[in-house]
Amino acid sequence: MAAIEASKSSTPLLKDELDIVIPTIRNLDFLEMWRPFFQPYHLIIVQDGDPSRTIKVPEGFDYELYNRNDINKILGPKASCISFKDSACRCFGYMVSKKKYIFTIDDDCFVAKDPSGKEINALEQHIKNLLSPSTPFFFNTLYDPYRDGADFVRGYPFSLREGVPTAVSHGLWLNIPDYDAPTQLVKPRERNTRYVDAVMTIPKGTLFPMCGMNLGFNRELIGPAMYFGLMGDGQPIGRYDDMWAGWCTKVICDHLGLGIKTGLPYIWHSKASNPFVNLKKEYKGIYWQEELIPFFQSATLSKECTTVQKCYLELAKQVKAKLGKVDDYFNKLADAMVTWIEAWDELNPSGASTELANGSTK
Amino acid sequence: MAAIEASKSSTPLLKDELDIVIPTIRNLDFLEMWRPFFQPYHLIIVQDGDPSRTIKVPEGFDYELYNRNDINKILGPKASCISFKDSACRCFGYMVSKKKYIFTIDDDCFVAKDPSGKEINALEQHIKNLLSPSTPFFFNTLYDPYRDGADFVRGYPFSLREGVPTAVSHGLWLNIPDYDAPTQLVKPRERNTRYVDAVMTIPKGTLFPMCGMNLGFNRELIGPAMYFGLMGDGQPIGRYDDMWAGWCTKVICDHLGLGIKTGLPYIWHSKASNPFVNLKKEYKGIYWQEELIPFFQSATLSKECTTVQKCYLELAKQVKAKLGKVDDYFNKLADAMVTWIEAWDELNPSGASTELANGSTK
Repeated sequence: MAAIEASKSSTPLLKDELDIVIPTIRNLDFLEMWRPFFQPYHLIIVQDGDPSRTIKVPEGFDYELYNRNDINKILGPKASCISFKDSACRCFGYMVSKKKYIFTIDDDCFVAKDPSGKEINALEQHIKNLLSPSTPFFFNTLYDPYRDGADFVRGYPFSLREGVPTAVSHGLWLNIPDYDAPTQLVKPRERNTRYVDAVMTIPKGTLFPMCGMNLGFNRELIGPAMYFGLMGDGQPIGRYDDMWAGWCTKVICDHLGLGIKTGLPYIWHSKASNPFVNLKKEYKGIYWQEELIPFFQSATLSKECTTVQKCYLELAKQVKAKLGKVDDYFNKLADAMVTWIEAWDELNPSGASTELANGSTK
Repeated sequence: MAAIEASKSSTPLLKDELDIVIPTIRNLDFLEMWRPFFQPYHLIIVQDGDPSRTIKVPEGFDYELYNRNDINKILGPKASCISFKDSACRCFGYMVSKKKYIFTIDDDCFVAKDPSGKEINALEQHIKNLLSPSTPFFFNTLYDPYRDGADFVRGYPFSLREGVPTAVSHGLWLNIPDYDAPTQLVKPRERNTRYVDAVMTIPKGTLFPMCGMNLGFNRELIGPAMYFGLMGDGQPIGRYDDMWAGWCTKVICDHLGLGIKTGLPYIWHSKASNPFVNLKKEYKGIYWQEELIPFFQSATLSKECTTVQKCYLELAKQVKAKLGKVDDYFNKLADAMVTWIEAWDELNPSGASTELANGSTK
């Protein structure tokens, strides 16, 4: 339970081990507000839409930028697994990164303030979450036991107090909550003003809706599962990219004994997207979801699945076998999942697929 | 998602449907601070220890009081299932109550303040928790979706948004956290100062450490599972009464499709108990627990278990079969579990055991 001395150190935490991935179609003026927190880090910008358009990045940021032409050039025919005209394209950034950690954020997300009025360094909190263990096997009623001023409560088994490695840190949003189109339509004025000062592990066996707006993860531990699917241009569905990634990731983390945390940090989500446009994107997802959730809830992976890649390919097989009959889209998606892993391994040849085999499985 | 208009109504919520159960060995001066919140309700005081001692209750409270002689008189030989010289005796109060809801609190718990400095009406928050549904089948990242200003987030299956009935509301503690003896010894000065403004459902399949200090439940839905076991006088263990009840209750709630919420409300826990005394009480529990948790994690109840009583008796059978070999204590405990149900049904003859058979099972 060593405290992570983040704010006191002069070097930003994980400066050379973390990339910030931003999908965008516009100039990145939003980075101005994040400058004190993001400037020390390397950015990977994935430009969506028209590749001839120039995206302006504020001066002083260290970045690489990929547009659709770059993606096609780098991946060749395998570029088909990367969505176009949808923020799902961000997962290309995860693939080309060479760092251990990823933080991804939407370009309509700004710095939030905590109840004392202090600006929240979201990235620092994600790093704290990722560097401290998770506790997926038993619920701790005082939330994250590794935070300062907290611990495991009476009745928490001692054998579980070391926790497991944290693979994902899922942050939340003040102001515009991440609602689906029907809820947006019913509650157009609802704003999230409740600052909940908690981080917690999502228990093993429980699925959650993972939002890609404000998300950190350990790329070495779980990267290949962070595929954001086929969304947007030419696809029958949108706005389920992060959900899909979250369900796959949760099943694989549960299988491999890795943890997922949710809660802090908050970002300030500035703009509600158009609920009518969203409804069109979501409507197949809203009913497919009723079959997807039972599928993921009952999905089990065999003992032979000792790496994220093996887990993911096994899951792709099950998607085809069990969801293909829901809609042919899931056959295409299952194929794209395989292509994604092939492309990942091509760009990350240094044995990423064996890293997890050394005992982090249950 | 109808708001519960608690603070606006002039009649206290559930005034005639809720009993407050307090186990004690001393005068109940602590009630003075709770007067504005508790006075409208009926109290059931379970006097522990020497029955010849007189417990003073501040004027103006409506109460009934039971000492050991009363318990022996009412239950006869079945009184053996009620612990003596341990706050586990409180469960006798659950049994003699005729109300639908129970709130139980320790006599060293005072009114806490929220971050704005306002005194927290803990009972009102428990009632809100108990009267709104739970969501054990899928995690909502914005916590309790039924609270004002919150809802289900994008990706939450619509079929699960009605939730399930809430059986238990588990409240937390500011100031002295509920730590076990080893943690008390290691961190004697740790105080809980973090006010986490959240209520959440503990997911299905996940166990938690239920603390009896600040606890509400629906007696009709789950009462017979709230047995606090054999602790204290003549027993090899203490301070596991509420834990035992919590593990049994969670398994049964999961089986019957009922929900358990944790989080708000906070009370102010004033006094740390002696860690050396606690260590003696706990030490068998600390290692037994390592076998108890896997037992409860893998416990399954048959389809025939359609009432809490049937579930509980089935669980007692499994305790004897699987934990009896850990220590003979668990054989005695299993017998006491059966006695508890017999006593419960004797005092609550009006078919409580059939109430849940009408469809609230999965």
